[in-house]
Amino acid sequence: MLKSWPETAHRLIAVAMGREKADMVIRKGRWVNVHSGEIIPATDVAIAGGRFAYVGPDASHCIGKDTRVIEADGRYLVPGLCDAHMHVESGMVTVTEFVRAVVPHGTTSMFIDPHEIANVLGLPGVRLMHDEAMAMPVNVFVQMPSCVPSAPGLENPGATLGPDEVREAMQWPNIIGLGEMMNFPGVIAGDDKMLAEIAATQNAGKTVGGHYASPDLGLPFHAYVAGGPADDHEGTRAEDAIARVRQGMRAMLRLGSAWFDVAAQVKAITEQGLDPRSFVLCTDDSHSGTLVNDGHMNRVVRHAIAQGLKPITAIQMATLNTAQHFGLERELGSITPGRRADLILTSDITTLPIEIVIARGVVQAENGKLIADIPAFTYPEAARRTMNMKRYLAAKDFDLAAPAGRNQVDVRVIGVIENQAPTKALQKTLKVQSGLVEMDRANDVCQIALVERHKATGKVVNAFVSGFGYTRDCALASTVAHDSHHMIVVGTNKEDMAQAANILKDIGGGLVLVSEGKELARVEMPIAGLMSDERAEIVAEKAGRLVAAMKACGCNLNNANMQHSLLALVVIPELRISDEGLIDVTTFQKVDVFV
Amino acid sequence: MLKSWPETAHRLIAVAMGREKADMVIRKGRWVNVHSGEIIPATDVAIAGGRFAYVGPDASHCIGKDTRVIEADGRYLVPGLCDAHMHVESGMVTVTEFVRAVVPHGTTSMFIDPHEIANVLGLPGVRLMHDEAMAMPVNVFVQMPSCVPSAPGLENPGATLGPDEVREAMQWPNIIGLGEMMNFPGVIAGDDKMLAEIAATQNAGKTVGGHYASPDLGLPFHAYVAGGPADDHEGTRAEDAIARVRQGMRAMLRLGSAWFDVAAQVKAITEQGLDPRSFVLCTDDSHSGTLVNDGHMNRVVRHAIAQGLKPITAIQMATLNTAQHFGLERELGSITPGRRADLILTSDITTLPIEIVIARGVVQAENGKLIADIPAFTYPEAARRTMNMKRYLAAKDFDLAAPAGRNQVDVRVIGVIENQAPTKALQKTLKVQSGLVEMDRANDVCQIALVERHKATGKVVNAFVSGFGYTRDCALASTVAHDSHHMIVVGTNKEDMAQAANILKDIGGGLVLVSEGKELARVEMPIAGLMSDERAEIVAEKAGRLVAAMKACGCNLNNANMQHSLLALVVIPELRISDEGLIDVTTFQKVDVFV
Repeated sequence: MLKSWPETAHRLIAVAMGREKADMVIRKGRWVNVHSGEIIPATDVAIAGGRFAYVGPDASHCIGKDTRVIEADGRYLVPGLCDAHMHVESGMVTVTEFVRAVVPHGTTSMFIDPHEIANVLGLPGVRLMHDEAMAMPVNVFVQMPSCVPSAPGLENPGATLGPDEVREAMQWPNIIGLGEMMNFPGVIAGDDKMLAEIAATQNAGKTVGGHYASPDLGLPFHAYVAGGPADDHEGTRAEDAIARVRQGMRAMLRLGSAWFDVAAQVKAITEQGLDPRSFVLCTDDSHSGTLVNDGHMNRVVRHAIAQGLKPITAIQMATLNTAQHFGLERELGSITPGRRADLILTSDITTLPIEIVIARGVVQAENGKLIADIPAFTYPEAARRTMNMKRYLAAKDFDLAAPAGRNQVDVRVIGVIENQAPTKALQKTLKVQSGLVEMDRANDVCQIALVERHKATGKVVNAFVSGFGYTRDCALASTVAHDSHHMIVVGTNKEDMAQAANILKDIGGGLVLVSEGKELARVEMPIAGLMSDERAEIVAEKAGRLVAAMKACGCNLNNANMQHSLLALVVIPELRISDEGLIDVTTFQKVDVFV
Repeated sequence: MLKSWPETAHRLIAVAMGREKADMVIRKGRWVNVHSGEIIPATDVAIAGGRFAYVGPDASHCIGKDTRVIEADGRYLVPGLCDAHMHVESGMVTVTEFVRAVVPHGTTSMFIDPHEIANVLGLPGVRLMHDEAMAMPVNVFVQMPSCVPSAPGLENPGATLGPDEVREAMQWPNIIGLGEMMNFPGVIAGDDKMLAEIAATQNAGKTVGGHYASPDLGLPFHAYVAGGPADDHEGTRAEDAIARVRQGMRAMLRLGSAWFDVAAQVKAITEQGLDPRSFVLCTDDSHSGTLVNDGHMNRVVRHAIAQGLKPITAIQMATLNTAQHFGLERELGSITPGRRADLILTSDITTLPIEIVIARGVVQAENGKLIADIPAFTYPEAARRTMNMKRYLAAKDFDLAAPAGRNQVDVRVIGVIENQAPTKALQKTLKVQSGLVEMDRANDVCQIALVERHKATGKVVNAFVSGFGYTRDCALASTVAHDSHHMIVVGTNKEDMAQAANILKDIGGGLVLVSEGKELARVEMPIAGLMSDERAEIVAEKAGRLVAAMKACGCNLNNANMQHSLLALVVIPELRISDEGLIDVTTFQKVDVFV
């Protein structure tokens, strides 16, 4: 357990003076100084009690016989990188496994919003991830989810959160603020519940995360800012970033597995000349495959530099700027006395190879390999038994009875758009046989079902979807089903749909692809049906096999399983499915399958 | 009473949307945007409930029949200026009178360290100024004095403060942090009391003010930083500022009445290219004459610009940078939604004429004239009766008996150095007559006495001083006597010395000059013997007359009364006087008058 600065001050002072000896000394590095904006050669660093005690030209006086000495040999000393807003669940692994995956990439601080587990397990789920986060050897701060459910009245998640829960969570030791306030229409309308959550956060002196997912920079944007959110990561254009910074928000520029919002927005600095201090980098959502193959915040910083930012500026945006935003400037984000001793050694400030990662004064990773021994965090059985379905399903659960006497029907169909979160509200004409509506594989119309799994209601909502391109009998079931995370099953064959759903019931959730009665691939995610506690590389490999199997069934969509998981996201237009039925997300009304 | 952002949020949102109307709208100004670093033309500002509700291209929708509309007509909209560290007592007036004096200069936030009253009245004195500060129509935050006494063991102030008092004060609503930690040798030595005060402040999440008054940037400096102080205003050279910023401190650049530390240090930015975000402007000490004749933070910003800083950068250093340093970024320091509506209208961003000053949404001053009605703050009688002397003094109280049988003696003499705080430890030979040591006016050696006034001990410490140049029979008495604020009397005539001391006893303290039995000038400071509750311009005029009278008595020193007031400052070398005796401040030992 890391002691606080005041608890460590006597030792830090004594080490700085040479009266006591450091735990570790790093010699002759290039100090990437995010306060002054300089790179200062030939700098020594002394560390004691997990914190920086001395940073200056010569730490010889801090070296004793038990001091570990690391020769930087002119390598750069970069503060450990911070991810200002992200969802661990997007990696499909636990906090522990996420940390294992990203520490070798130089990430030493994360600000996580456990919005997904909150939808399944409510406040106790948030607390579990909060406690797991505290057990990490790096800094993982938790943002209290603000919008559970995301779309009140249009979906029924496993739990709901409101101002009372926010007030309670603000007292926990590791809560850093409120997670993205997605209900921006609510804020703009002066919704009491949303404003009470913001008030509870501000009154606790903590940071209100924003999420203004609209291109409208007119009055609604101004009103949203007046409501209190202090940052936003939903901008995509340079003008979005400029507007946010001018209004006193932090512009969080996002590079996730499927978000590419840095390049356009960083032009606010490189072309418009804005002061970079209010810009912060984040990932929001990283799949395990990205973590394993491409990196994490190092990938974002490298990308930002490639867009024309000075390296020191890009590094400030992933260190000091982030720390300042969350009121942690005196705790982390720079290599200066008193702060947590989190730093990276790298031999190139532009390409940023991560050679040594130190967090809290301990070498955590070297040359891409984790060295730290991070013990497994044990989730209680309740968090592993969240498949609260009423019964096993059968093919007939997916029958869609046509109105009496019809031999063909016009139906609403959710149209998947490749590489986009919004869907199209399509209409198709389908045949009726024996009173049941038939799928139309030739025209890429198959069935989608929302299977309730939180309160054993037994509810199965059936509808149609187009865009996956399945050409075989098959079904994909997923308990990652944003945001209320019931189960979404998409299939061309009802037996396969039932079998896929039942497999997930048995294994506690995850993703499974069944074709012609045989399981082709699965990714087990037994924790809340959202996360695996296997290594990220194993999960990434399984996810890769699942996507390959989807391809074999005819689905060539990019990020096909993610597209699948978003079809219940009843906050983004146009047509979605929820446990309440088919939802028109342009009018926020329930609509019938039949036109 | 200004409501908090969350308490005002409903209204701010409604005004931003146009559903409700603003209290005030300012039209078509040039928005000095300290977040983005831009100056944005044709900007409207809407204010409601004392906070900014909307800042953007058109606030027409916020204007109702009761909305006050101010036409900016292209003038600059500058956030209200912040003084990051200052002592109200240096102005010789109360907080209320100080505020009256500086608001017309555009100061809307002050961070005051009531170190002087703390030496007289202890924690209750701090509380009085804290409460007075809270009653102001502008933002006056209080730093809890850290070093009372300044020199433990070498002086006895009216009260002492320690970790218990600091812990208590940190709970008060208007305490923003710990005042300058002057005891840097204590911090470096790991002094438990000093570190406990710092710990109490850090544990409360507040800012520890620094005061590292040494040119040594070696190990002691590094150790001091490791102890926790987060800023420092004692730097005088560019390398001082650079060292502080690199170590993660804020470099506070000071332009006071007698401090000129901006020009040299700002070169760290203009010549060395450091990131300006960690630089902050302050005054530390402003005499009432400066406030009346020259200005306050507007003077500092203007001066910083004249040194080559971009105007927007200098303004950031007196607004956003300050707010961020104290954790107030979401409360003040910029013209953005939710923040306190503090701003200045000025038609020139370089010379900074202060045309309109708005604080908390109210016009406080126009064209240098205060408009706000600021009610007097009533200090309790206890704060006005601090001349706790045992008795009236007579000339014989200033007799200095020579060792028996001597007709001349070698004595230690405090040597005043013009325009410097340090003194010289001189030695002189003086004649003895009737057993008493005689002054030597021809060689500018006169008497100095420290008259105890806090605990009625009746103690009078007598010694010699050189450098004032008095040529007539006269005596100047002052209860401004840093840092323990007993009474210092300097005179060429013992009857005049007694009379001056007795006048101050009667009027509750202040400054008085007596010559040949006649009072030539006085400045009454009945509150703790440190402050007047008259207008600053009256006090400045009285102080001016006092200095003129000192001149008439032969004293041509610059800032003569300030030099007088510093002679008991037993933390700055070389020789000082205290209620304990004559103090050698190179060895921190009491020494005898006689060599």
